[in-house]
Amino acid sequence: MTDSKSSAGARHYPLQGVRVLDLTHIYNGPYATFLMAMAGAEVVKLEPPTGEHLRHRAESTGAEVPFAMLNANKRSVTLDFKSDRGRKLLRAMATKADVFVENFAPGVLDRNGIGYENLSAVNSTLIYASATGYGLSGPYRDYPAMDLTVQAMSGVIATTGFPEGLPVKAGPAVADFFGGVHLYGAIVTALFDRERTGAGRLVEISMQESTYASLSSSIGQYFKNPASPPPRTGNSHSGFAEAPYNVYPALDGYVAVVGNHDAHFQRLLRIMGREDLAEDPRFVGLAARASNIEAVDDLVSNWTRTRKKSEVAAQLIAARIPSAPVREISEVVNDEHMHARGALEWIDHPRYGRIAVQRSPMRFSGTDPIPLEPSADLGADNDEVYADWLGLDEDKLRSLREAGVI
Amino acid sequence: MTDSKSSAGARHYPLQGVRVLDLTHIYNGPYATFLMAMAGAEVVKLEPPTGEHLRHRAESTGAEVPFAMLNANKRSVTLDFKSDRGRKLLRAMATKADVFVENFAPGVLDRNGIGYENLSAVNSTLIYASATGYGLSGPYRDYPAMDLTVQAMSGVIATTGFPEGLPVKAGPAVADFFGGVHLYGAIVTALFDRERTGAGRLVEISMQESTYASLSSSIGQYFKNPASPPPRTGNSHSGFAEAPYNVYPALDGYVAVVGNHDAHFQRLLRIMGREDLAEDPRFVGLAARASNIEAVDDLVSNWTRTRKKSEVAAQLIAARIPSAPVREISEVVNDEHMHARGALEWIDHPRYGRIAVQRSPMRFSGTDPIPLEPSADLGADNDEVYADWLGLDEDKLRSLREAGVI
Repeated sequence: MTDSKSSAGARHYPLQGVRVLDLTHIYNGPYATFLMAMAGAEVVKLEPPTGEHLRHRAESTGAEVPFAMLNANKRSVTLDFKSDRGRKLLRAMATKADVFVENFAPGVLDRNGIGYENLSAVNSTLIYASATGYGLSGPYRDYPAMDLTVQAMSGVIATTGFPEGLPVKAGPAVADFFGGVHLYGAIVTALFDRERTGAGRLVEISMQESTYASLSSSIGQYFKNPASPPPRTGNSHSGFAEAPYNVYPALDGYVAVVGNHDAHFQRLLRIMGREDLAEDPRFVGLAARASNIEAVDDLVSNWTRTRKKSEVAAQLIAARIPSAPVREISEVVNDEHMHARGALEWIDHPRYGRIAVQRSPMRFSGTDPIPLEPSADLGADNDEVYADWLGLDEDKLRSLREAGVI
Repeated sequence: MTDSKSSAGARHYPLQGVRVLDLTHIYNGPYATFLMAMAGAEVVKLEPPTGEHLRHRAESTGAEVPFAMLNANKRSVTLDFKSDRGRKLLRAMATKADVFVENFAPGVLDRNGIGYENLSAVNSTLIYASATGYGLSGPYRDYPAMDLTVQAMSGVIATTGFPEGLPVKAGPAVADFFGGVHLYGAIVTALFDRERTGAGRLVEISMQESTYASLSSSIGQYFKNPASPPPRTGNSHSGFAEAPYNVYPALDGYVAVVGNHDAHFQRLLRIMGREDLAEDPRFVGLAARASNIEAVDDLVSNWTRTRKKSEVAAQLIAARIPSAPVREISEVVNDEHMHARGALEWIDHPRYGRIAVQRSPMRFSGTDPIPLEPSADLGADNDEVYADWLGLDEDKLRSLREAGVI
């Protein structure tokens, strides 16, 4: 299916010609298929006739931009897979697809007759991709999974926050998005292999497992001292082993500074006008500084708190000392760098107005960026897709519509 | 190069036969090549003759397990690319590779004559993969990038923590690992496309861009109310729009509970023995509960604080109410579920002793898990790899060794 779509002319998009049936919702699965769409795959987003959850939230609780971002360049098609005719329709669609992606709880689609066994029976070359909270096997298989609960289970919450304070979740939905991008990786890996073998397969990821490696530093500290691993370390190094390494107060917010190498620290002293401390035994060498973290942090804070965060960062960066302002979301969505690189793009969305949406973080030389298509209205592509993929005519479509199947 | 390696017998690993030259270090790049190795690619980790940074940290600051985890199933080969002979050697190796991966700052490898232009000139089918903090172009291109500074720049720190408290970084190294897994996705996408076109290319990701989408909820809240977006919301919903949705105190720690759907909340009242509140106007409907978050949280806390976290979670999960204990790292590395699924495996590492290491979160049906090989000692595979790839004999190897090139 993919070969016939290769273009002989201008370099095509890397996933051009790949047909994706996308039964995902909210963040995790839709991010995977967003990445596929932005790499040139043809993604058909299947939604219940009432629309997926995130589309609803876009009407009420501030999910307009997330919905628009994660569903750009996808076609929207409705299909009620809980009806007999809907399931039949879905199986027919699966015979025309390269990839089927879903992020329902384990067993839901099996019970509806559209699980891996069912779809691979009608299309042996199909790559069937499943994303769940805890995977398709094991004792926690059926645990309810959302970003917050997976952050709790995976150690993200326990390791986030200040030692003397409460544990707190990471602001970003790390479990959802680690899940989503690992799912993308698994799908494309299977596509690569299928080019050589011709065979489809089941691929799966769990949000919990996809989050694990990101805790490497805390895991390392635990193994170093299993009896009493370091607590949450706030903005300090996860083993309290480096200094300066923290987020410091500034006139207008906060600024991150990492000056733990001796050369960095010496340059930092010069910039702060504190070369008098160059030989101070509390500060000579990383080990000494790590034993005097409070003194180091006081020293740096006293300098940063009289300056603007962007000025501190600019001055330190010019001296090749790692530093960055702690930026608010308003600064992030207006980031001049990401806009200059085309990573963010202002669009006039037909439903949500003027918003900034993201392009794929994956860049491929030799192809122009794919033209951005705003997320589609619910079912906007029903007629075209059902006609293209299955040859359904207007009578047939009307009957499906009237029965509430699409 | 890949075709000749396909096995006709038992199903091979999905990336079997793919040869990877891995010039990455610390977390971001090595995670990408770890995922490749665990999918069956042949990964040759090139290190300076003194070893990469994380190998050093493994000797001092608790990075034994991170180093062992991220470098499993790779061969270790030393090469000083800052010497003329080293560069020549590297270019020769690049003629035999499918993929070259690096995560140096932009321009470093170009200046050393082993950038994309140099290596694609000797191997037009090579996929050259670059991971940086901010990408290969744009105004921030040369900003120093580490997980902490990218968390600051990307909005992770500003959105993490309690409204009345200080901003705090996410405990996990989210910028590093989002970068790493996006890099994996970009590489495999290019490999897929190369099967159809035969052509190599440059692929790149930035840590900043790879982190952006995970902030979708906060970005959505910002666009909903740009003049005064919600502050950090601790463990509550990012728009304070759902309740109960929080981390609550337990006898022995904390427990996450998300009972925002009406049916969840009614079941929760029953479990807490508070059906008397079923008609309380503060709690009827999501909108009412969201307006009375403090009352909802007090109600739930009063029940959870007299019970163990695992008991609360078990009872709520049995009632299909999303919940999870906030688990410490000690619980996470010993997770019965991940061990049962083979996601974690205890190994006796020849250098680091008995440790738990992770397997790839990506699972592919039809292949057995790849046998786990502990991370190799520095340069352990010099002789074999240089002989296999370049046909270097013992005299040649001795000369390179004596000159400090390998």
